[in-house]
Amino acid sequence: MVKALICGGSGYAGGELLRILSHHPHVSIEGVTSERSAGKSVAALFPHLRKYSHLLYEPLIPETLAAKGDVFFMALPHGTSQQAVDFFYRQGKWVIDLSADYRLRDAGTYERWYGVRHEHTSTLGQAVYGLPEVYRESLKGTRLIANPGCYPTGALLGLVPLSRAGFLRHSSIFIDAKSGTSGAGRKGDISVSFCEINEGFKAYSVGTHRHTPEIEQELSVLSGVKVVVDFTPHLLPLDRGILSTIYVHPMADVSPESISALYRDAYEKEPFVRVLEYGVLPNIKNVRGTNFCDIGLKFNERTHSLIVITAIDNLVKGASGQAVHNMNLALGFPETTALENSAVFP
Amino acid sequence: MVKALICGGSGYAGGELLRILSHHPHVSIEGVTSERSAGKSVAALFPHLRKYSHLLYEPLIPETLAAKGDVFFMALPHGTSQQAVDFFYRQGKWVIDLSADYRLRDAGTYERWYGVRHEHTSTLGQAVYGLPEVYRESLKGTRLIANPGCYPTGALLGLVPLSRAGFLRHSSIFIDAKSGTSGAGRKGDISVSFCEINEGFKAYSVGTHRHTPEIEQELSVLSGVKVVVDFTPHLLPLDRGILSTIYVHPMADVSPESISALYRDAYEKEPFVRVLEYGVLPNIKNVRGTNFCDIGLKFNERTHSLIVITAIDNLVKGASGQAVHNMNLALGFPETTALENSAVFP
Amino acid sequence: MVKALICGGSGYAGGELLRILSHHPHVSIEGVTSERSAGKSVAALFPHLRKYSHLLYEPLIPETLAAKGDVFFMALPHGTSQQAVDFFYRQGKWVIDLSADYRLRDAGTYERWYGVRHEHTSTLGQAVYGLPEVYRESLKGTRLIANPGCYPTGALLGLVPLSRAGFLRHSSIFIDAKSGTSGAGRKGDISVSFCEINEGFKAYSVGTHRHTPEIEQELSVLSGVKVVVDFTPHLLPLDRGILSTIYVHPMADVSPESISALYRDAYEKEPFVRVLEYGVLPNIKNVRGTNFCDIGLKFNERTHSLIVITAIDNLVKGASGQAVHNMNLALGFPETTALENSAVFP
Amino acid sequence: MVKALICGGSGYAGGELLRILSHHPHVSIEGVTSERSAGKSVAALFPHLRKYSHLLYEPLIPETLAAKGDVFFMALPHGTSQQAVDFFYRQGKWVIDLSADYRLRDAGTYERWYGVRHEHTSTLGQAVYGLPEVYRESLKGTRLIANPGCYPTGALLGLVPLSRAGFLRHSSIFIDAKSGTSGAGRKGDISVSFCEINEGFKAYSVGTHRHTPEIEQELSVLSGVKVVVDFTPHLLPLDRGILSTIYVHPMADVSPESISALYRDAYEKEPFVRVLEYGVLPNIKNVRGTNFCDIGLKFNERTHSLIVITAIDNLVKGASGQAVHNMNLALGFPETTALENSAVFP
Repeated sequence: MVKALICGGSGYAGGELLRILSHHPHVSIEGVTSERSAGKSVAALFPHLRKYSHLLYEPLIPETLAAKGDVFFMALPHGTSQQAVDFFYRQGKWVIDLSADYRLRDAGTYERWYGVRHEHTSTLGQAVYGLPEVYRESLKGTRLIANPGCYPTGALLGLVPLSRAGFLRHSSIFIDAKSGTSGAGRKGDISVSFCEINEGFKAYSVGTHRHTPEIEQELSVLSGVKVVVDFTPHLLPLDRGILSTIYVHPMADVSPESISALYRDAYEKEPFVRVLEYGVLPNIKNVRGTNFCDIGLKFNERTHSLIVITAIDNLVKGASGQAVHNMNLALGFPETTALENSAVFP
Repeated sequence: MVKALICGGSGYAGGELLRILSHHPHVSIEGVTSERSAGKSVAALFPHLRKYSHLLYEPLIPETLAAKGDVFFMALPHGTSQQAVDFFYRQGKWVIDLSADYRLRDAGTYERWYGVRHEHTSTLGQAVYGLPEVYRESLKGTRLIANPGCYPTGALLGLVPLSRAGFLRHSSIFIDAKSGTSGAGRKGDISVSFCEINEGFKAYSVGTHRHTPEIEQELSVLSGVKVVVDFTPHLLPLDRGILSTIYVHPMADVSPESISALYRDAYEKEPFVRVLEYGVLPNIKNVRGTNFCDIGLKFNERTHSLIVITAIDNLVKGASGQAVHNMNLALGFPETTALENSAVFP
Repeated sequence: MVKALICGGSGYAGGELLRILSHHPHVSIEGVTSERSAGKSVAALFPHLRKYSHLLYEPLIPETLAAKGDVFFMALPHGTSQQAVDFFYRQGKWVIDLSADYRLRDAGTYERWYGVRHEHTSTLGQAVYGLPEVYRESLKGTRLIANPGCYPTGALLGLVPLSRAGFLRHSSIFIDAKSGTSGAGRKGDISVSFCEINEGFKAYSVGTHRHTPEIEQELSVLSGVKVVVDFTPHLLPLDRGILSTIYVHPMADVSPESISALYRDAYEKEPFVRVLEYGVLPNIKNVRGTNFCDIGLKFNERTHSLIVITAIDNLVKGASGQAVHNMNLALGFPETTALENSAVFP
Repeated sequence: MVKALICGGSGYAGGELLRILSHHPHVSIEGVTSERSAGKSVAALFPHLRKYSHLLYEPLIPETLAAKGDVFFMALPHGTSQQAVDFFYRQGKWVIDLSADYRLRDAGTYERWYGVRHEHTSTLGQAVYGLPEVYRESLKGTRLIANPGCYPTGALLGLVPLSRAGFLRHSSIFIDAKSGTSGAGRKGDISVSFCEINEGFKAYSVGTHRHTPEIEQELSVLSGVKVVVDFTPHLLPLDRGILSTIYVHPMADVSPESISALYRDAYEKEPFVRVLEYGVLPNIKNVRGTNFCDIGLKFNERTHSLIVITAIDNLVKGASGQAVHNMNLALGFPETTALENSAVFP
């Protein structure tokens, strides 16, 4: 049994790590931290875990924790995560960071978008970007994983096959993304209170969302040229899920068959990507609570735009599920362990 | 034009007062207070009122405000409201208090349930309980109105005809009430954040909710004996509305006709109570945004229980709409002024 | 009093016509039709209108109806509407058609997208497209109005100022629209049942939605060149509202000031368009139940894309409210009559 | 591997059987029926099951099916189920009937409440009522199980300890139950369309719901006297879950400790019942997608009423999960097989 610790376990991503790892046959959760809830039980904050977790929250004291675990899941705010990640990594631990701190390879870009200096650039250089569909081989055996952001996961899985095939070099890309409210985190804030969100819908952070450079970084690497994107997030009045409607324009003429083949070839061996029949469109509801990414495709012959639509669960494939997938790869477990389940519908 | 001031105008009840009074032909809103939002515009806090309100929030300075208005709507927290109400009342103003501070006639009961001492018992003695269907004549011309709580409004309108007819003297009463989340107020608190409320449903404050003594007070007055009730509130994953399912048991044998007649007779002249045909049941959705109370009736012959179900909008009939109704009565305007609208459906 | 008839009054748009016209001081509703619900009361189908409507549904018998009314609101399915519109128009009545049948000026385009032949092309030539912000002068006194589709209303109001200024001649346009479920109509169909829609989100009719040619027609007229658009509708798990996120790319360099000025100048005298401060983004929730269109603007300097976001209520500004606005213009009533209300929030 | 067949697999309960059994290590699903969807794939009707089910629906031809399976899950409408259950049972199969047809021991009661004659009364006499917390021993090895209704499951688990202890003999019982909309089934019907349900809440079938005699039957058996109940179901605007607020009155004086002890003793060995600390109240959200029943307790000293609140998932513990639990018991598998999972929160 591998001993796991969860740093920052009182938020929604932390709750999902607790849920998923509780059912992992090769992992025992040895501790979970929360500064504000230290001393309280997991079941008090997450009554749905009653019976599956008997842990109490403890404060994050690096030295104490280091002695207790092998693999560290870091679900701390960006900026805060940096140092703790560096510490556990230097202690020889496996570290999977769910924050943004080790995702951007260029510290300057990180500082520009996040307004925080990166103090651990040499450790930064060791991090592998945890998108298994792209970096599977590098992830095997690595000790430091930068788990992708939720929006980048949905956007990239929709664009990876096109990037690799060179289609993005001469096209504009518009990513119109819509996320459930859990993406805003578990917090007491009027802006996410029920009555403000329910029956409402809006865009936010238009042109300025911090996930933008992460998307552009990966597309640029895969395309071999600098790629920029319009990225517009919206807030959906539902708990979970991200639907990304992606426009690539102009697109060299493609047929339904050729575009389907491109995506099927890219993903046919992927356990968590389901490419739908051409013209069939994904729905957030079908991936809720799962590690799946469903992908739909449509070419608009009138406008020469390709529309790619992806659906993921922001807390699973977009956070904690992908983190466990990455751990499975890093530690050599069968990669779908603890992640095989279908959505609960309706 | 009567000059109105709204004390505590940044919450949901305050927002509704702003909305309703903006369309009142005999009222001009001269000011609105909020300590935390002083200096901000109403449109910043309530973008839906853009174009209809150009006011800025100001702090509540009693002397300054007193000079500006004739009628004062008090939408402050209980405990806080007491003193300001007393002040404006003594200045000769009309005062409509939406807090709980002047609802309970007995200061001791107030102190026991609210944990706050009542410092203005002589003013308390002047307050009229603002349920027009019961106290219409007393409300005409009065200067101090204790606007009923949201739950008591729904519960009492369902029980008034029975109380008057003496049916409650020998029966047990169970009020199982379900409220939309706006009833919890506009606040930044994890417990009312979208993801905690959405797709969830629970009871709270079972047997201990502070609206209990208010319901019992009025039922006892009308029944002529001390009445106690089981009152159980629940939290619905929707914005607005209270549905109260009320069980009266055992109930002397009644026929559909007799029970319908009792309610129709009680309410046939009431502009805001709609008694449905026997067996037809109300739905929160049909009263949303309105000052209506819809009432459904069913007698269970197998158990000898009468089930009365009422639906109101907690922020309109249960708060701000009823407050305007009361103002209309107190100041002699046609009583439905600014309150004639149907729900927006769906 | 003008005598109004509503043909097709059992759906959501019909219900909204009943609601809005019930409060119109210069209109009396003389009849409402429904084939399936003939003989039933309006209050049976729309309990929220109880007290405001005492009509019974009747079948649509053109000759009988013609004798009863002056102005005819046609809320019938496309294809079905054609002939009835033609009949009432030839009888000298005012006709406001909420279906798609008289929106497309070119009968061939209509037939291609709707799969129905247009049998009344000479009457078609008389119709004025009922977007008051563009065609106000033509609407005054006209007798045949093609009321715009819900999606086109939101899309066009976001693009009219750009079209007029010539900005659309050399740009690509992506309209990513999200609509509440009432847009699908009031129908018994598993696909719109609660459990399928709730907690879900998906795109539909990508590249093939019938509102596309309507949007392109109007943009082309205003731009003076043929304009094509990518239009992608999505289905939101909420009752009402359309948010349209519109990308115009590439966009000549514009400043926040210049782009704001363009929109303010275009709409400053419009009673139902609210241009928000640059960077402030609209929310469906703020326009629910109203005839407003809120517009937000953001220029992305990194990508040279202009993002315009509009919010409307699909059943009011996108259907019945706009229809009443058009009637007011056609018949010479003050144009905001019966349409002055703010959203009910929350 | 046991071979399972699902008769009536296109509804929500059928979908849940497919989901749960797909992950059962000792079961292979050999077929699934649907008259209307015969020939279609499971993934077409339930895209969330894509990858986990590759079956096609087939019509229900008893002889053909009998040859293919060992255990038959019957998710057909009541009335329809009767004969098919009888057939498979007589063929020596294990039969778990999710309809109401074999729940009421008295055929006359069945006929009175369901309006259908029972044609297989001798088979009826063989059925075991599938509430494991009460009938575990009888369920082991039985071949015919009447799976409880959703409302009865929630109501009975809240009342079983009181019944056994004799508390219900002299008390009145009010069961105010609130169910998610999936309880109405998967159907195309305006009454369950999104816009009718969303933001609404209502009671239905007051005093006449068909689950009433099922609740009374079991409480009477356990209490040793005839018990009647007031049962009032309501429809919640959410997908899943039933919260039952149960009033028992008058209740002999009980202390928090004594009442908690009663429930803990009753359920301490039950794998799927979680008795919460006295005063802690359950929330539907914590049991969604699980086979758990959470129970909260509160004694109202002012009124001498005991309030018991239970939360279940209507499709899992209230239908398909309980059916699999029953199969595990009947066939001798570890009883929690395929049912060990916590809710996905939020």
